[in-house]
Amino acid sequence: MTNSGPEDPAAREDTDMIIIMKPNASAEAISNVTKLIESRGLQAHLSRGDEVTIVGVIGNKEKLHGANIESSEGVDRILNVTESYKLVNKKFHPEDSVIPAGNTTIGPGNFTVMAGPCAIENHDMLLQSAEAVKKAGATFLRGGAYKPRTSPYSFQGLEEEGLKYMKEAREATGLNIICEVTSLRALETAVKYVDMLQIGARNMQNFELLKEVGKSGVPVLLKRGLSATIDEWLNAAEYIISEGNPNIVLCERGIRTYETSTRNTLDLSAVPVIRAKSHLPVIVDPSHATGVRAYIEPLSKAAAAVGADGIMVEVHPCPSCAMSDGPQSLTFEQFDTMMRHLKPYVELAGRA
Amino acid sequence: MTNSGPEDPAAREDTDMIIIMKPNASAEAISNVTKLIESRGLQAHLSRGDEVTIVGVIGNKEKLHGANIESSEGVDRILNVTESYKLVNKKFHPEDSVIPAGNTTIGPGNFTVMAGPCAIENHDMLLQSAEAVKKAGATFLRGGAYKPRTSPYSFQGLEEEGLKYMKEAREATGLNIICEVTSLRALETAVKYVDMLQIGARNMQNFELLKEVGKSGVPVLLKRGLSATIDEWLNAAEYIISEGNPNIVLCERGIRTYETSTRNTLDLSAVPVIRAKSHLPVIVDPSHATGVRAYIEPLSKAAAAVGADGIMVEVHPCPSCAMSDGPQSLTFEQFDTMMRHLKPYVELAGRA
Amino acid sequence: MTNSGPEDPAAREDTDMIIIMKPNASAEAISNVTKLIESRGLQAHLSRGDEVTIVGVIGNKEKLHGANIESSEGVDRILNVTESYKLVNKKFHPEDSVIPAGNTTIGPGNFTVMAGPCAIENHDMLLQSAEAVKKAGATFLRGGAYKPRTSPYSFQGLEEEGLKYMKEAREATGLNIICEVTSLRALETAVKYVDMLQIGARNMQNFELLKEVGKSGVPVLLKRGLSATIDEWLNAAEYIISEGNPNIVLCERGIRTYETSTRNTLDLSAVPVIRAKSHLPVIVDPSHATGVRAYIEPLSKAAAAVGADGIMVEVHPCPSCAMSDGPQSLTFEQFDTMMRHLKPYVELAGRA
Amino acid sequence: MTNSGPEDPAAREDTDMIIIMKPNASAEAISNVTKLIESRGLQAHLSRGDEVTIVGVIGNKEKLHGANIESSEGVDRILNVTESYKLVNKKFHPEDSVIPAGNTTIGPGNFTVMAGPCAIENHDMLLQSAEAVKKAGATFLRGGAYKPRTSPYSFQGLEEEGLKYMKEAREATGLNIICEVTSLRALETAVKYVDMLQIGARNMQNFELLKEVGKSGVPVLLKRGLSATIDEWLNAAEYIISEGNPNIVLCERGIRTYETSTRNTLDLSAVPVIRAKSHLPVIVDPSHATGVRAYIEPLSKAAAAVGADGIMVEVHPCPSCAMSDGPQSLTFEQFDTMMRHLKPYVELAGRA
Repeated sequence: MTNSGPEDPAAREDTDMIIIMKPNASAEAISNVTKLIESRGLQAHLSRGDEVTIVGVIGNKEKLHGANIESSEGVDRILNVTESYKLVNKKFHPEDSVIPAGNTTIGPGNFTVMAGPCAIENHDMLLQSAEAVKKAGATFLRGGAYKPRTSPYSFQGLEEEGLKYMKEAREATGLNIICEVTSLRALETAVKYVDMLQIGARNMQNFELLKEVGKSGVPVLLKRGLSATIDEWLNAAEYIISEGNPNIVLCERGIRTYETSTRNTLDLSAVPVIRAKSHLPVIVDPSHATGVRAYIEPLSKAAAAVGADGIMVEVHPCPSCAMSDGPQSLTFEQFDTMMRHLKPYVELAGRA
Repeated sequence: MTNSGPEDPAAREDTDMIIIMKPNASAEAISNVTKLIESRGLQAHLSRGDEVTIVGVIGNKEKLHGANIESSEGVDRILNVTESYKLVNKKFHPEDSVIPAGNTTIGPGNFTVMAGPCAIENHDMLLQSAEAVKKAGATFLRGGAYKPRTSPYSFQGLEEEGLKYMKEAREATGLNIICEVTSLRALETAVKYVDMLQIGARNMQNFELLKEVGKSGVPVLLKRGLSATIDEWLNAAEYIISEGNPNIVLCERGIRTYETSTRNTLDLSAVPVIRAKSHLPVIVDPSHATGVRAYIEPLSKAAAAVGADGIMVEVHPCPSCAMSDGPQSLTFEQFDTMMRHLKPYVELAGRA
Repeated sequence: MTNSGPEDPAAREDTDMIIIMKPNASAEAISNVTKLIESRGLQAHLSRGDEVTIVGVIGNKEKLHGANIESSEGVDRILNVTESYKLVNKKFHPEDSVIPAGNTTIGPGNFTVMAGPCAIENHDMLLQSAEAVKKAGATFLRGGAYKPRTSPYSFQGLEEEGLKYMKEAREATGLNIICEVTSLRALETAVKYVDMLQIGARNMQNFELLKEVGKSGVPVLLKRGLSATIDEWLNAAEYIISEGNPNIVLCERGIRTYETSTRNTLDLSAVPVIRAKSHLPVIVDPSHATGVRAYIEPLSKAAAAVGADGIMVEVHPCPSCAMSDGPQSLTFEQFDTMMRHLKPYVELAGRA
Repeated sequence: MTNSGPEDPAAREDTDMIIIMKPNASAEAISNVTKLIESRGLQAHLSRGDEVTIVGVIGNKEKLHGANIESSEGVDRILNVTESYKLVNKKFHPEDSVIPAGNTTIGPGNFTVMAGPCAIENHDMLLQSAEAVKKAGATFLRGGAYKPRTSPYSFQGLEEEGLKYMKEAREATGLNIICEVTSLRALETAVKYVDMLQIGARNMQNFELLKEVGKSGVPVLLKRGLSATIDEWLNAAEYIISEGNPNIVLCERGIRTYETSTRNTLDLSAVPVIRAKSHLPVIVDPSHATGVRAYIEPLSKAAAAVGADGIMVEVHPCPSCAMSDGPQSLTFEQFDTMMRHLKPYVELAGRA
């Protein structure tokens, strides 16, 4: 990685770190650490305390590559002061991004509603769903053609056939379409059909897939992993953007905790945290987070109020016949009602 | 525990359970389990499956006291179908409760704002805080006189002296006052001063304290424990109500997860979950949940939108001089601004 | 999926389930549910309780495909009584498996030690490491050629060049070699070199990759995901075995919790749990779990004592120069000492 | 808090900290922070980085009381370099403590086995249990007289009557006795009977109770809270020791995670972590951690191997009749077998 100037993100690898020495670190050990730092062309600032000595490292941390200070004698631990993600970092791109996707944009000013069935089960159910969610006010049709399933014996999706139905639904309604991709093979096919790709929670750290999505240039919705920290999530986004694709929208979909009355715990505070750390838009998926139909409306309102850029909601013509995730899917009528109840919150949030 | 009629909560112990036998359970083992159940005057319903046999138990589970079926030969596990909390259960009390406290009520129709410093540090800072939060629209003054602190060397609170300042603040402003109690001794003193008691997260399962609060009859705010499930939280409330005190308000304040960008993870889905399971009001504390000032306003709006009955917020005349929790405290001006921004969300939620 | 006899895993889909009706479910709702079940050729067993009615479903659950009962009127929730994984399930394969890999086997009777550097950094460090771990008693050389890294800017591995060094190390020492694969592309290359593939924690639910590994037939070490339940982990193994590859060894490597003094929390109880649920061998990786060199030896002894089939440990010629994971790597000398201290525990556990 | 000499724990409050300024902090903001530090008689060491400036604070952090730097303009966050617990800290007391309790000691050289029923149900079952666990090799009898129960309707213990049975059991067998106390009232009674007090997981941060246990001087077993970090646990121990009671033994009993195949997740790595951070002995309770009888033996062996100072195990004359925790209790015969299987591991660990 070269360091070619202030416009170059690589130049922003000039990360500072703090080395905390052990209480009993010898003068020699401390001296060895500072020498090592200086031998790489960096500066070392010493703070000798009553209990511990601290060494501040100033300059491009990349220069320390291979000089694993963390394992040097007398070193207790190392703190990285700055984040490892750069291109998605608000610090270097203070203005909130507006992401173009299909015939619309996602981000400031808009509140994007993506709705549809968990899985595309057949032609008719998808087309009906598209009509219904369009009428209620959604601008994106969601629908799974490739389903990542815990058990190999569960329904795995209609694949390309499903994508064709999606395309037909777009033509019939004018909705934009978004589909999850779970492999390079799926990606290759999906880019021929969709307006926006989706990376699901289980693939948030499938780095190979992230890189290829980055190369594709197609707008992408990146869901948070079930146990991903916000920093790991932003680093996953960095994989995509560093391959040249800045059209990323994040999606909070619940994290894994010990609580069992909801499937996962929706972390709505992630919205203001992302707002503080990144310029990327962030939407919320209350359907997967809770797994319970009755909680979708209150949490969608909360998503609008907390400042999210939209929601993704599961809707099904007949939830009691759904092949997956029926209990969390809204009927067409329930979705329509929810959208009407949600509208004033969206307006109040200055999003319509 | 006797079973004296439909008005008696004990009568509601008629809990059903399901016993799942092991795949290889012998006919004799199954027969022994059903005999045991019937010997206690209960009914056993057998479902023989291809893989496992299931025994449904019908009737008052209390009759099985001491007959630990879970350990009987051939038993795989037992599922309790119904909840162990009764008096706080919505099933037996479908109407949402309105809790009287001080000169107001908490629950449907109201959005209660409790605000003030984390700890009462001295007379003047408390009185100034009271004036400021009153002016901005709060109806309760919060302030810690007894502080549960992780380290014994941290400031532990002004105790009764602090309560006297609280009382003075009430007289000066007309605000209701709420104070945390951390021990029976603190409780004994606090009931002489406060309009509402608070049980903090660390004491949510201090059952001795819960019982005494139940006996006191004083309205109480019960915070969720850092790693408490919603069911455990409702069972903690049951300890209070079963001693005769129905004036309980719940407070979601964040749960412990692996995420580190907020102090805890605010579980806003707990609000609709509580709404579905209990008739008790529930408010939200975004200050302790996040520990970050900038996230208080968006999460307060989300709390209103998700249907909470109010919020509890930390406010301090000079957050940068606060003895505890400075980084999450709002200044008077920030609180005033937040209250103005919050107002339309509260109105939209039908709470003003 | 057909049901063609006891040798057919599909035949084992005869999963029983329990449907719990809501307390207020109408007689009609209950009747609709039982009719639906019976219309699919299954049996429904009714247990009417004082509070709730329970419906037991007997027979091949697959027949209910598309009849999403969970969403039917009056249904509260559904409990699956039996596991969705079959071929890795101890219930249907009571004898513990012995997995052949390279010139040895993993499982009962053996305690397999896999050791080596986190990443293959260059030719010499790998060859030196191989000599050292061989001498100390390891039978597998580990070494990462494809590194899944949180940040795109971190070192990503030597790829095929690294695999060539691994092969050379095998020829020089007689050690078996194991390498992580992170994509289909990496898999395609790696199968030409390694004795055993490794699926890392981040790819535990990369189902596409699991299926291809299943087709490859090459022995595979499947690490537990950072937030995977044991059931999800066994389902991931089911993906591999259901494609025809029974040569799977599991590896516990720590799960994500709120504790910060170790990188993750090593779940040693997973070993007896796996022993009870599956016939597959399970080994333990204390290096990644803790991230702290000083904890490797005590946890390796504990792994032997708890009944694990082996350990995977990071060793590096110069941990303080390591490109990744230096702080948790043992020096050659430390590894040698550890192996001598571990030996009597392995013998006591009847593994040598 | 005064700073009067090396014997005074307060003197050890000389904690260093690091202040990380925001990337855009003005020169004035930085200057204000250093002035504030120096005005309190402390030293500030400045490290100016390319991105951020770091301020090291040297000297007794207590002097900054009330000067909440964390909220000062331009400050990003504060890192405390040293721990807040002192008297239990290994740094200031490098030798491992040996805790006298009853007629024995807990710590180096010993492997203490505490066994008995979860709850004391009646006279005979306790006396029988005492005989049985004594014969099998335990040196402590455990038995709950005060039971902290999630539901107010569950059995709460025999209280003082139970303690009398415990005393009788001690007289009959020579076993030392240990009992949980859940309130100040229980403590007052228990100290008249027991050799060792126990603070349960739910009361680990019941600071009032910790202080009184500290004043009592009676040896105490302090269990880790369900969601307590190791640092919080050591701070809880500091509450006891700072009141003058150094006779503390820690007990790891599982932490709350998302995994459901065990009741909690036993964190065996806590043993070497405690060993590194504190001089206090630490034992392991596999019964409460897992809730499953079959996992007790392998995890007890692992506890010995990882270096624990003992175990606490539930034993019951008839687990299938137990009033609480039957599924995890061993029969007398199972306990006897387990103790024989455990013995060589204990010897190998140099503990007998």
